[in-house]
Amino acid sequence: MRYHPGLFIPGPTNVPDAVRRAMNLPQEDMRSPDFPKLTLPLFADLKKVFKTETGQPFIYPSSGTGGWEAVLTNTLNPGDKVLISSFGQFSLLWADMCQRLGFETEVVEVEWGEGVPVERFEQILSADKSHKIRAVLTTQNETATGVTSDIAGVRKALDAAGHPALLYVDGVSSVASIDFRMDEWGVDGIVSGSQKGFMLPTGLAIICVSQKAMEAHKSSKFPRCFFSFEDMLRTNKDGYFPYTPATTLLRGLRASLDLLFEEGLENVFARHHHVAEGVRRAVDAWGFKLVAKEPKWHSDTVSAIWVPSNVDAVQVIRRAFDRYQVSFGSGLNKLNGKVFRIGHLGATNELMLLGAVAAAEMALVDCGAEIEFGSGVAAAQAYYGSRRNDLAKAA
Amino acid sequence: MRYHPGLFIPGPTNVPDAVRRAMNLPQEDMRSPDFPKLTLPLFADLKKVFKTETGQPFIYPSSGTGGWEAVLTNTLNPGDKVLISSFGQFSLLWADMCQRLGFETEVVEVEWGEGVPVERFEQILSADKSHKIRAVLTTQNETATGVTSDIAGVRKALDAAGHPALLYVDGVSSVASIDFRMDEWGVDGIVSGSQKGFMLPTGLAIICVSQKAMEAHKSSKFPRCFFSFEDMLRTNKDGYFPYTPATTLLRGLRASLDLLFEEGLENVFARHHHVAEGVRRAVDAWGFKLVAKEPKWHSDTVSAIWVPSNVDAVQVIRRAFDRYQVSFGSGLNKLNGKVFRIGHLGATNELMLLGAVAAAEMALVDCGAEIEFGSGVAAAQAYYGSRRNDLAKAA
Amino acid sequence: MRYHPGLFIPGPTNVPDAVRRAMNLPQEDMRSPDFPKLTLPLFADLKKVFKTETGQPFIYPSSGTGGWEAVLTNTLNPGDKVLISSFGQFSLLWADMCQRLGFETEVVEVEWGEGVPVERFEQILSADKSHKIRAVLTTQNETATGVTSDIAGVRKALDAAGHPALLYVDGVSSVASIDFRMDEWGVDGIVSGSQKGFMLPTGLAIICVSQKAMEAHKSSKFPRCFFSFEDMLRTNKDGYFPYTPATTLLRGLRASLDLLFEEGLENVFARHHHVAEGVRRAVDAWGFKLVAKEPKWHSDTVSAIWVPSNVDAVQVIRRAFDRYQVSFGSGLNKLNGKVFRIGHLGATNELMLLGAVAAAEMALVDCGAEIEFGSGVAAAQAYYGSRRNDLAKAA
Amino acid sequence: MRYHPGLFIPGPTNVPDAVRRAMNLPQEDMRSPDFPKLTLPLFADLKKVFKTETGQPFIYPSSGTGGWEAVLTNTLNPGDKVLISSFGQFSLLWADMCQRLGFETEVVEVEWGEGVPVERFEQILSADKSHKIRAVLTTQNETATGVTSDIAGVRKALDAAGHPALLYVDGVSSVASIDFRMDEWGVDGIVSGSQKGFMLPTGLAIICVSQKAMEAHKSSKFPRCFFSFEDMLRTNKDGYFPYTPATTLLRGLRASLDLLFEEGLENVFARHHHVAEGVRRAVDAWGFKLVAKEPKWHSDTVSAIWVPSNVDAVQVIRRAFDRYQVSFGSGLNKLNGKVFRIGHLGATNELMLLGAVAAAEMALVDCGAEIEFGSGVAAAQAYYGSRRNDLAKAA
Repeated sequence: MRYHPGLFIPGPTNVPDAVRRAMNLPQEDMRSPDFPKLTLPLFADLKKVFKTETGQPFIYPSSGTGGWEAVLTNTLNPGDKVLISSFGQFSLLWADMCQRLGFETEVVEVEWGEGVPVERFEQILSADKSHKIRAVLTTQNETATGVTSDIAGVRKALDAAGHPALLYVDGVSSVASIDFRMDEWGVDGIVSGSQKGFMLPTGLAIICVSQKAMEAHKSSKFPRCFFSFEDMLRTNKDGYFPYTPATTLLRGLRASLDLLFEEGLENVFARHHHVAEGVRRAVDAWGFKLVAKEPKWHSDTVSAIWVPSNVDAVQVIRRAFDRYQVSFGSGLNKLNGKVFRIGHLGATNELMLLGAVAAAEMALVDCGAEIEFGSGVAAAQAYYGSRRNDLAKAA
Repeated sequence: MRYHPGLFIPGPTNVPDAVRRAMNLPQEDMRSPDFPKLTLPLFADLKKVFKTETGQPFIYPSSGTGGWEAVLTNTLNPGDKVLISSFGQFSLLWADMCQRLGFETEVVEVEWGEGVPVERFEQILSADKSHKIRAVLTTQNETATGVTSDIAGVRKALDAAGHPALLYVDGVSSVASIDFRMDEWGVDGIVSGSQKGFMLPTGLAIICVSQKAMEAHKSSKFPRCFFSFEDMLRTNKDGYFPYTPATTLLRGLRASLDLLFEEGLENVFARHHHVAEGVRRAVDAWGFKLVAKEPKWHSDTVSAIWVPSNVDAVQVIRRAFDRYQVSFGSGLNKLNGKVFRIGHLGATNELMLLGAVAAAEMALVDCGAEIEFGSGVAAAQAYYGSRRNDLAKAA
Repeated sequence: MRYHPGLFIPGPTNVPDAVRRAMNLPQEDMRSPDFPKLTLPLFADLKKVFKTETGQPFIYPSSGTGGWEAVLTNTLNPGDKVLISSFGQFSLLWADMCQRLGFETEVVEVEWGEGVPVERFEQILSADKSHKIRAVLTTQNETATGVTSDIAGVRKALDAAGHPALLYVDGVSSVASIDFRMDEWGVDGIVSGSQKGFMLPTGLAIICVSQKAMEAHKSSKFPRCFFSFEDMLRTNKDGYFPYTPATTLLRGLRASLDLLFEEGLENVFARHHHVAEGVRRAVDAWGFKLVAKEPKWHSDTVSAIWVPSNVDAVQVIRRAFDRYQVSFGSGLNKLNGKVFRIGHLGATNELMLLGAVAAAEMALVDCGAEIEFGSGVAAAQAYYGSRRNDLAKAA
Repeated sequence: MRYHPGLFIPGPTNVPDAVRRAMNLPQEDMRSPDFPKLTLPLFADLKKVFKTETGQPFIYPSSGTGGWEAVLTNTLNPGDKVLISSFGQFSLLWADMCQRLGFETEVVEVEWGEGVPVERFEQILSADKSHKIRAVLTTQNETATGVTSDIAGVRKALDAAGHPALLYVDGVSSVASIDFRMDEWGVDGIVSGSQKGFMLPTGLAIICVSQKAMEAHKSSKFPRCFFSFEDMLRTNKDGYFPYTPATTLLRGLRASLDLLFEEGLENVFARHHHVAEGVRRAVDAWGFKLVAKEPKWHSDTVSAIWVPSNVDAVQVIRRAFDRYQVSFGSGLNKLNGKVFRIGHLGATNELMLLGAVAAAEMALVDCGAEIEFGSGVAAAQAYYGSRRNDLAKAA
């Protein structure tokens, strides 16, 4: 019997009960006069989450991958040059998409464990006097390595270089969990999905683009239909969609946004940091290392953890699943077998992560790691306890 | 208070309780060792629904529109010639997609109310000696007009012309409701969605392509990523997906397929015909006409009904919604104001349609139609009653 | 496949989706500091439903039958004399309970189809100079016969006779559907259950007693424990319960009360009358008779309908269930085989009842009734249509 | 935000998702021809849970308290003598019920922390030559103290004394979690509720009585109606109920029984012991004591834990709830402030209890306990790990 989801992967995340309930409803008429009462406020509220006044949000029945494609194919043209860095499986996949979609893709390879190479970007952008680079693509949180990048820094690099390229951000595993400021950072396209910080099942690509990107859209000739902005814009403005929307998930999104606003976005970010830091203390107590090389890159949504050389991370994850009914994230690509990941985003609290850390200790010991039972838990407890007063205010 | 969904649109359809329950579950690890136990049988069972032994099914977190795009962009090349007929809003939109994706699109305009022009297609195909036409696109059930076309006839036309074009079918509002035979009819691509005969919420494009289409895929150079077959194939074969799948809907699909097989596909088709015929008798009793011009084009999933010239169909639909809490489908495009539609697909029975007919009568009378209360209901009852013994066997 | 509940029995009634959702939640700690935030407002709001300022509500994890027992065993003593009339299965069962619990039970037999015999009661009460009768028991709505009694009249009879007996009312199938005024009518105990007008699953006895009944409680020596007021009072005042309460149903009750108040109690009553009157018009159009002998006894929550002598009502109900997937209420006790019942209480609207009437017509015809298809539906439609403007205001 | 139920009270327990889903359904007709297909197997399967061939099960829409009353009032007469021991809040309440219901109640006071005094009972029974004692009442698991008693021993005491008294067992917090053998132990009445080992919401009293108790029933003259066996027997035999049953919970019970049988009852008991023992090791590691005085009395469903004298257990529980979002059971009656309880019954696994132990450590430290963070967790982990191979077989 698996009596507990035991879900500690970096998404899909645990769906709060209020959200789950909101989605347990009959189908509805997506052309009814009442439907815009649901949808128009969703668009308005998404802008609050993205911290933008002037951005244009879109919701597709799709996934984060579809969101990437929507942003690229609506605002660029085949053959356009884009600048991207690759430092984990997801930034790598986004670069791969660019190549497959026919962009001239300049990929800056960065060691996994580091983030967007802001200075290198600034050099490249400064050198691009003819402004051939049309867009700079970044990943705010690389889910594979647990690395959070400095998006504000990329903006500064663009500005320092006086470069007009569009700034696009993959925020799939950061939005609604880690602070993101579209307007302040001058972001032109942000991509997120339903199944991470929005605490919903998979099924929605949630994106937002700037007016500058909307301008670029006008001259974009990419063949597109499903993801086309124009069809969406024409119908969204009245609260409708060009094809049948995923109404169940939209109802869930309403409930999810209500929860986020009730807690307060800043409190949500603080909670993520708090919970994550406890996990990091546990990793430290075991004597293990994070893939993220420096504290500035620590991700508050997922920790990717190197296992000792005598331990097979694949086996740890399998053991946790088979014996302790716990799902951890695996090491992707070149991290396979060497890394396991603990997701700590979305609807989480200390209790859940203390259990996850305890279960990780058991699976690790079972697979040959020489750590003390309870050592990571104790470190997390000490941190959680010492921060109690700060958090009490936010609760 | 809206205490009853009153949903009689041609999709999204009413989700059966067993399906709704199956989707009310925590999120799960889509990379767990157990996950293929769910997914591999889904692929196998979809082939039964499509009636194919050799077809290759795909499931995207998307919609029917995305399914269209997936089939086209994976098997054709920009500039390829396609043959399509337009006889309703959805066939028209598919033709529009072809044009926007850059295909040379030959559109045969057909009067709305008729179906795929089989003989005209045969002429065109016969005349295309150089086999420039790469694909013939058809719509098995045009949801806007309630017209079901003769797909087997299109296959015969292709064969008679000795033409090697691929045969693609939009089965969004027919699959799992109206008989569809992929292998027997030589269909190379069938597109459906979760929210019609599969009785699920919107959110999945469910498609299947023939081995011939898979061959064509090899030389397809369309820029694509989200919808690409190659990524799907590589991971699907082991029961996984290239990006996070909509696990909630996959669990629902399992429940939906179980219901379809428990009832028996042929019984499902018979039930749809039975329920639909009652509605048609009601329309006849009112002295109204269907948009479908001849019985051979009658759709068993949706009836599009002309209102008398003194009646505004928009008002009828609005009245039904506001006053009787019932959703009917609207007249799309040039049918706007002249037509309303009653959906009778998915999880339906006589009780539901008798209620729908009664509510339609009230809204029609309220909006000026001179029909007798109960006249349509009585005609439907007479049909349902006379067929009772036949149906009893199927029950 | 049974794809529609088709539930037209006089309870359990159809649970609105908002209520169903509210009950789909994890278990909770019924001794937590937060729990009274749920429960204290429930007690306060129940008083509004009962229209009492000074009454004392109780909620038991039980059923209406348990509610009867709770009122009797907490306020009377074994051997006490009670006055009751029997005019249907439920008033009969309550009288039976009185006898089994050891009360001296004076039962006034009334023909089934009539209500509480107010004048006869006045005579009996006037004749009871020594006030031996401790309580008068009435049934506001006799579910078996579809008869609503005049509770205000019984109060007048008591007053006219200058009799101090307690006035108890079985309101299981009336409360929250038909107007009930505890304080104005001087009712000392009202019994209801969760599965009728409260639109919840079965599982709660919801009762309310007057301060006069609470006085009587002090001298009641009945052996009791589960149903004892004293344990409830001691803990309820702080929002807790003496034993584990049915928290799921309490959460549902919160949602149900919210719906009732949002619609407005008077609008709820008007809706019940409106929907019921349509059913009565249908019965009339068939040339059938209600069991309720006079309009003043017509129940707005259930219609008990005599079938013609050549028809077996048991067969009608069975046919409706087996062939049309519709549940009607059966004829209870001496009405068995002669009567079927249509419940029209709780979360109902015209669409639902038009379907029910249509299905009844089919089952009746199948079982030999000589009625015209659609005749009852047309009569209901005519009524619903003519009242449209009145109702529009309430909507 | 409370994103996790954090429910570690000894009932209501966490409802498994399969059970929760099974209860999320429309209301149904409890007089339909299909209804017995649900109910008759339930009665048969409950007998398997109680390990009886000849017992007679009953299901009431009530609670465990109601179950006590049902057994007593159906098989005894007012004034009958019963023998009971009091060693915790629940055995005390059952004795209190006996007194309030008018039985001559011999209460053997036992120190809290011990169980049923088997030897003392044997002495009393042996001395009762005239067999005045009609029933011996025991509590298999005293939820307030975490003490499991020796019911087989009580049977031996009765046999040794040659005493014909009925043997009644409160199994509310033991049935379906701790082994119970009705026939082998000669139990005449067992009382349980839905919200513990059956993993359902509160709302059902589930009891079973022997044929000997059914004989006693024939001469029982207790005033009763709601709880009367006779009404139940008359209708249950065909799968129906004398008044509206709680169909939602019956559907849940079906799902719950399916889970129990799928895991296997003996595996369920082993799992409970395993999980519980981990908690006991944690308590030991803290240097704390259980209320249960000896290992033979250790309960596998709940641990009642003495806090150090400088710590207020009320504060610990409050702190756990307010700060860590975890519910523990409180110290009842004279244990108030000195004891907190961890429930480990129903749908539990190691992950959940490791989290609970970790949270308990934090709340304890916050309230002044001098324990090492992680010390209890480590002890539980060591036990869970060492037992891994044994359990792997059962999984």
